Amino acid sequence: MADLLTSMDNVALTSRFLGTRSLTDSLSAPLSAEDQTVQSMPDVSPTKWHRAHTSWFFETFLLSPSLKEYEPFHPAYEFLFNSYYQGVGTPYPRDQRGLLSRPGIRDIAAYRSHVDRAMEQLLRESLEPETLGLIELGIHHEQQHQELLLMDIKNVLWRNPLHPAYASLAHPDHGTPTLPPVTWTEHSGGIVEIGHQGSGFSFDNECPRHTDLLSPFAIADRPVTCQEWLAFIDDDGYQRPELWLSDGWSTIRSERWDAPLYWTRVDDQWHIFTLGGSRPIDPNEPVCHISYYEADAYARWAGARLPTEAEWETAASAGGDGGHFLDGSVLHPTRLSGDETPTTTAGLCGDVWAWTSSSYGAYPGFEAAAGTVGEYNGKFMVNQYVLRGGSCVTPEGHTRITYRNFFPPSARWEFSGLRLARNI
Amino acid sequence: MADLLTSMDNVALTSRFLGTRSLTDSLSAPLSAEDQTVQSMPDVSPTKWHRAHTSWFFETFLLSPSLKEYEPFHPAYEFLFNSYYQGVGTPYPRDQRGLLSRPGIRDIAAYRSHVDRAMEQLLRESLEPETLGLIELGIHHEQQHQELLLMDIKNVLWRNPLHPAYASLAHPDHGTPTLPPVTWTEHSGGIVEIGHQGSGFSFDNECPRHTDLLSPFAIADRPVTCQEWLAFIDDDGYQRPELWLSDGWSTIRSERWDAPLYWTRVDDQWHIFTLGGSRPIDPNEPVCHISYYEADAYARWAGARLPTEAEWETAASAGGDGGHFLDGSVLHPTRLSGDETPTTTAGLCGDVWAWTSSSYGAYPGFEAAAGTVGEYNGKFMVNQYVLRGGSCVTPEGHTRITYRNFFPPSARWEFSGLRLARNI
Amino acid sequence: MADLLTSMDNVALTSRFLGTRSLTDSLSAPLSAEDQTVQSMPDVSPTKWHRAHTSWFFETFLLSPSLKEYEPFHPAYEFLFNSYYQGVGTPYPRDQRGLLSRPGIRDIAAYRSHVDRAMEQLLRESLEPETLGLIELGIHHEQQHQELLLMDIKNVLWRNPLHPAYASLAHPDHGTPTLPPVTWTEHSGGIVEIGHQGSGFSFDNECPRHTDLLSPFAIADRPVTCQEWLAFIDDDGYQRPELWLSDGWSTIRSERWDAPLYWTRVDDQWHIFTLGGSRPIDPNEPVCHISYYEADAYARWAGARLPTEAEWETAASAGGDGGHFLDGSVLHPTRLSGDETPTTTAGLCGDVWAWTSSSYGAYPGFEAAAGTVGEYNGKFMVNQYVLRGGSCVTPEGHTRITYRNFFPPSARWEFSGLRLARNI
Amino acid sequence: MADLLTSMDNVALTSRFLGTRSLTDSLSAPLSAEDQTVQSMPDVSPTKWHRAHTSWFFETFLLSPSLKEYEPFHPAYEFLFNSYYQGVGTPYPRDQRGLLSRPGIRDIAAYRSHVDRAMEQLLRESLEPETLGLIELGIHHEQQHQELLLMDIKNVLWRNPLHPAYASLAHPDHGTPTLPPVTWTEHSGGIVEIGHQGSGFSFDNECPRHTDLLSPFAIADRPVTCQEWLAFIDDDGYQRPELWLSDGWSTIRSERWDAPLYWTRVDDQWHIFTLGGSRPIDPNEPVCHISYYEADAYARWAGARLPTEAEWETAASAGGDGGHFLDGSVLHPTRLSGDETPTTTAGLCGDVWAWTSSSYGAYPGFEAAAGTVGEYNGKFMVNQYVLRGGSCVTPEGHTRITYRNFFPPSARWEFSGLRLARNI
Repeated sequence: MADLLTSMDNVALTSRFLGTRSLTDSLSAPLSAEDQTVQSMPDVSPTKWHRAHTSWFFETFLLSPSLKEYEPFHPAYEFLFNSYYQGVGTPYPRDQRGLLSRPGIRDIAAYRSHVDRAMEQLLRESLEPETLGLIELGIHHEQQHQELLLMDIKNVLWRNPLHPAYASLAHPDHGTPTLPPVTWTEHSGGIVEIGHQGSGFSFDNECPRHTDLLSPFAIADRPVTCQEWLAFIDDDGYQRPELWLSDGWSTIRSERWDAPLYWTRVDDQWHIFTLGGSRPIDPNEPVCHISYYEADAYARWAGARLPTEAEWETAASAGGDGGHFLDGSVLHPTRLSGDETPTTTAGLCGDVWAWTSSSYGAYPGFEAAAGTVGEYNGKFMVNQYVLRGGSCVTPEGHTRITYRNFFPPSARWEFSGLRLARNI
Repeated sequence: MADLLTSMDNVALTSRFLGTRSLTDSLSAPLSAEDQTVQSMPDVSPTKWHRAHTSWFFETFLLSPSLKEYEPFHPAYEFLFNSYYQGVGTPYPRDQRGLLSRPGIRDIAAYRSHVDRAMEQLLRESLEPETLGLIELGIHHEQQHQELLLMDIKNVLWRNPLHPAYASLAHPDHGTPTLPPVTWTEHSGGIVEIGHQGSGFSFDNECPRHTDLLSPFAIADRPVTCQEWLAFIDDDGYQRPELWLSDGWSTIRSERWDAPLYWTRVDDQWHIFTLGGSRPIDPNEPVCHISYYEADAYARWAGARLPTEAEWETAASAGGDGGHFLDGSVLHPTRLSGDETPTTTAGLCGDVWAWTSSSYGAYPGFEAAAGTVGEYNGKFMVNQYVLRGGSCVTPEGHTRITYRNFFPPSARWEFSGLRLARNI
Repeated sequence: MADLLTSMDNVALTSRFLGTRSLTDSLSAPLSAEDQTVQSMPDVSPTKWHRAHTSWFFETFLLSPSLKEYEPFHPAYEFLFNSYYQGVGTPYPRDQRGLLSRPGIRDIAAYRSHVDRAMEQLLRESLEPETLGLIELGIHHEQQHQELLLMDIKNVLWRNPLHPAYASLAHPDHGTPTLPPVTWTEHSGGIVEIGHQGSGFSFDNECPRHTDLLSPFAIADRPVTCQEWLAFIDDDGYQRPELWLSDGWSTIRSERWDAPLYWTRVDDQWHIFTLGGSRPIDPNEPVCHISYYEADAYARWAGARLPTEAEWETAASAGGDGGHFLDGSVLHPTRLSGDETPTTTAGLCGDVWAWTSSSYGAYPGFEAAAGTVGEYNGKFMVNQYVLRGGSCVTPEGHTRITYRNFFPPSARWEFSGLRLARNI
Repeated sequence: MADLLTSMDNVALTSRFLGTRSLTDSLSAPLSAEDQTVQSMPDVSPTKWHRAHTSWFFETFLLSPSLKEYEPFHPAYEFLFNSYYQGVGTPYPRDQRGLLSRPGIRDIAAYRSHVDRAMEQLLRESLEPETLGLIELGIHHEQQHQELLLMDIKNVLWRNPLHPAYASLAHPDHGTPTLPPVTWTEHSGGIVEIGHQGSGFSFDNECPRHTDLLSPFAIADRPVTCQEWLAFIDDDGYQRPELWLSDGWSTIRSERWDAPLYWTRVDDQWHIFTLGGSRPIDPNEPVCHISYYEADAYARWAGARLPTEAEWETAASAGGDGGHFLDGSVLHPTRLSGDETPTTTAGLCGDVWAWTSSSYGAYPGFEAAAGTVGEYNGKFMVNQYVLRGGSCVTPEGHTRITYRNFFPPSARWEFSGLRLARNI
């Protein structure tokens, strides 16, 4: 009976495993071998590296330790496709991933297939809960890389003066020409509970669920839009040091930033580059691809501030929003008529990741996962800020209200926007 | 009557003003013109720059706006000695302060004297509370630079292969050959209040006083000692990536760190460089000159963690410690028999600054001070971690339980150590 | 009659044009799309860039100005595939050629074909001598890029930890186990003539033929071999500063060079990486892939010196050697049983390029070619040293005794060796 | 009798030794301790370092080996003040000379005095010719550093926004408002002899005297003036890539050069910074502080070229010019009414160093001096170009027609100008 249950669980897990693996392949499908090879900056990984690394995860943490007589696909891959797990040996240098012409995309397709067949075999066995947990982790890990793959290839295509599109994607018509002004949802503060609890999947950094104490606050009912951002630009927002954190000011000076990433001005009209190619800005879409520094400066300019992650999670819980996605996401087959660019929404999840003012750190009582996979989240708990929600390139089913995304404050190639908060 | 009171207040303020200014000069006295000119790394400022910049503060924020017919000492100084106040114009580049042979130390002495005479004149007038507040701020600003001056010149002298001493300072005898093991003070957690309140001076970043919610915790009754740190080194602490944050591991690899700053091994004996010169390590003195990364790795190795700043402040308030200083501080005339190196103490303030796990950010409800002086603290609230307490080079009377010092996690030329905490 | 002659000339030129174009395609054939995309260092260009740039040359300098109604293949290619001709506009940055996933290799194949068809059309017309000269120049330009393509892909494959081979190439058996010691050919010096003259093709930098005055000298009858280089290594050649130019010593320290490029020591046996993959060193093959600094240091260690380019050319003229090639060159179909690695030879041309002690500069009376193609050679006459002869990857028929190759003194990814000279 | 002659020779040598040492002290006299400490860029050395290093030369190569019972002044100075002699051990890093606040200028004055007294003692002995030669070399070495000291402090003072003057120096009145156009002296070419020969002092790189073969050429009778350079600027000389060597174009783009070093435009009037402070340009003075790249571009623009060093030396020999100096040299007490800035002159030596098109290399038959002093010149024979003549800051008696100065082509803090040549 236990076996039967296990078997039924495994069937579901196998299905999700294969579905996730298949989506990765679909996301790569529009890309040529050349596209999949290029690394446009050290933060970016080539598409084929993502495809290999997600397979490496299953090979390293599941197949080699748990599947009898498993033969690794290639002896050098353990080294080449290790991202940062020191427990598995010194990884191949991250900033040189774009130098690897071999293995080519055919080799990597074969690698993926090899791992998939072995995983199917493993999933036919009766597995320990810990092993099942690692498979679950591997699926979520691959989902993260699906988003990274899209973030990264967008940057690769952008760096090319030809600005090619990833795919032919229509931008949805937003209907009303002008959005109404933002409205604010108030929260009375007090002791709240945040963090993950229960039997559903979460990463270790979302735990433990714990109490926090909030002052009364209000949070905007939608993200800041491009039209609002244009007002910031027109008010010399990028030229006024008093609006900026000191490190932010240094960054925008040295990098010569005067608008979000992927914005260009063509004949007095701002255009943005999307996975569907370049097009004029839609004033009602949420501003996207901004750094923490820019989000912070905008909030100061607007007389508001960024929410803390506890405020965000509390507001999201109250709203009951659990993962709203927009039409137009490139990831969702039913929405292929739209392009990747997010649009405003009343939901807290979905359009663009929302920068919070919270430095990424351990929750009280945090314990990293045991073993090498414990390197997954904990060792990055410094020099980064938390983003919450999800974006139009986050895979369906991958968002959670407790999910903690994180990037350094200067990063902006992720699909990042902001939602304002203020004291009341 | 009000005038009389003002006058009496002004007399006290004048005395503190002149005392502070005089201490800066005393601290510079052992240093040659050459010593006062060198900048050993971009973070470090030359001694004579500190002496000028602290005068610039009074000239810019007090004398020019508030003293009738005040003549600035030199028209170029507004630019040369502006540290980072964008409101006063683009400052002279920080990393080029060591290129300024002129003005020389005589010019700067004359500048200080010019400012002091003018300030005395100003202090004879009846002043608005806001003006008095700025003078108070200027005094505390100069006290901060007294500590910076000592931190910086220590680095300058260390970079010189001759390793000259700043002054002849005897190291105190610590008596007992081995300290007893650390003991832990427990706190039951719950809602606590932290932050500054009341009429005493504080920086804006210590406000407002506000509530926070703590889980039960314990905190060590003394800082980690050099003997304990040596055990970490001997246990390959600097060679085991699993103990380190990812950025920390990158840093110690690229910088080739294998011990705290100012430690050198001479014939199998560790020596440290102090303001009194090089000498063998005293096993009972607190470890000093470590980065956040090292503090964090040590805590992980020790099965503990760093305290949050709220935990630290709560524990310090409970202990009633308000600024314990050790014998041996170079800043305290009565302690000149000691050297600058801190020793263990039961008090939370005094020996070495204690790294906390708290990222430096705004307290709920924080408002930066109005005007250009508002650039003082708020614009640095990113990419830094809070240190609490004070050190043997912190001026007497400058420590407070609510005081928030902050440095980037890789910085270690400040007098930084750590005190362990753990969950209970 | 003149038309007929032109026509006959054009037929021959067309044949050489198409043969050269075809060889470039053959050289690319073993390489995948991924291989052709990677740029391993700023000096290296991706294979597909070479294929496009050589087509750009014909489009820019021949087709657009001279073929009526010629339509450029793509409007952006003028910019993307301009190497360094400022007269054609600011070129796309050299160090970012590896970021261009598009155009892909299929687009570039189509580009090449488009250009070839148009060139065939042009070649059917009666052409001015100047136009014919530019076609000739374009052919030689493409031959240079054939060598660059092989140099560059060798570096790309080497940077990959898998060290894949470019092609399956057998290394020829050198027969005798040990070469006899080097012998010296003496020259009595005096006034000599060097430089190009006559109707054959040459680059502008080989002209004008002019007189020079030589002291008596002797030149070795073969290049330095790997066995001889091993003796230099074993005698601590890379650890003795007195053997090195100051810049050379700095370079080998900072780059940690202790052997030629592509050498690795595996279990006490030196291996070299060739276009045929890794294999043990053949002691009798000429040392290859050394910088000017290394060539100079070796010569000093050997009690000899590098020849000047005038000495080399004088010796080569006397020897009657006009372009000896070795078995094993990857470029020559009849030699495909060998690998790319050169072997010693009595001829002055062919095995490895020979570093000379001559800084690359203008010959007396030098005039750069008119127009934008004048940027071809003259503007590089600084900071480089001349190499003479040719190498096993130089296309057949591309070597000349007057040919001046040039690289910066730190470069060693070209097929460079050395031949000793001395005063007599 | 031999002893008597030696003694007389020694007296003369002692006098020259002491005079040279004394001039170094006089040159340092106007500079504060702070001025003497600063290093404005890696190429520049602090004044006090020059003062110490020239003493180190005598201590290392004369006193320690040749004076019985000589006690080095300080054990660390051998390391600290070694410039680049690997034979004496690894030198203290050049780019960190500005970090050495100690030894201070008083210590260095004592060091100089200690060395001088010991040298006087040595000079009272009967010395081997080789020892006398080393003393002679030390004197010339110190003279070179006198020029370097002035070049370097000029750069230090320039980097200071206050732009202080080194000394109060009047600029001479050049009389005629406009110079006549340049005239050309022709030379018929043929076999010439260049290089040093005979009993007078020379550096090893000037030897051996040897024959060279010249084509007929003409050389300008005066250096290019500022007025002429302004015409180059006004003709967009710095904006036209076709005038520049490729490396030169990259350099002026990345460094944003649009005029010689030390030129600034104030209200449409060009000013230059001199050792006497800033003043308007004198149109008739030779252009100074230009790089090789700028000299080369100017010559191309002017339809001329730079002379080779053999042409320069041949022309100088023909003209009989042996070291013309201008009024106004800071080095010459009788000329203290002028400032350091050179003026046009009919002589080939004196005003500004003249860039030649010759790469700095070994003369045929060159042998470096024996022992560690052989590192003096030979190891720099790469990546540099030769300058001939001398400048207004070259010490009197230090110029020779055979003297070969050398700098990298991007250097321009030396007193460098140009004199045109052309083929006839």
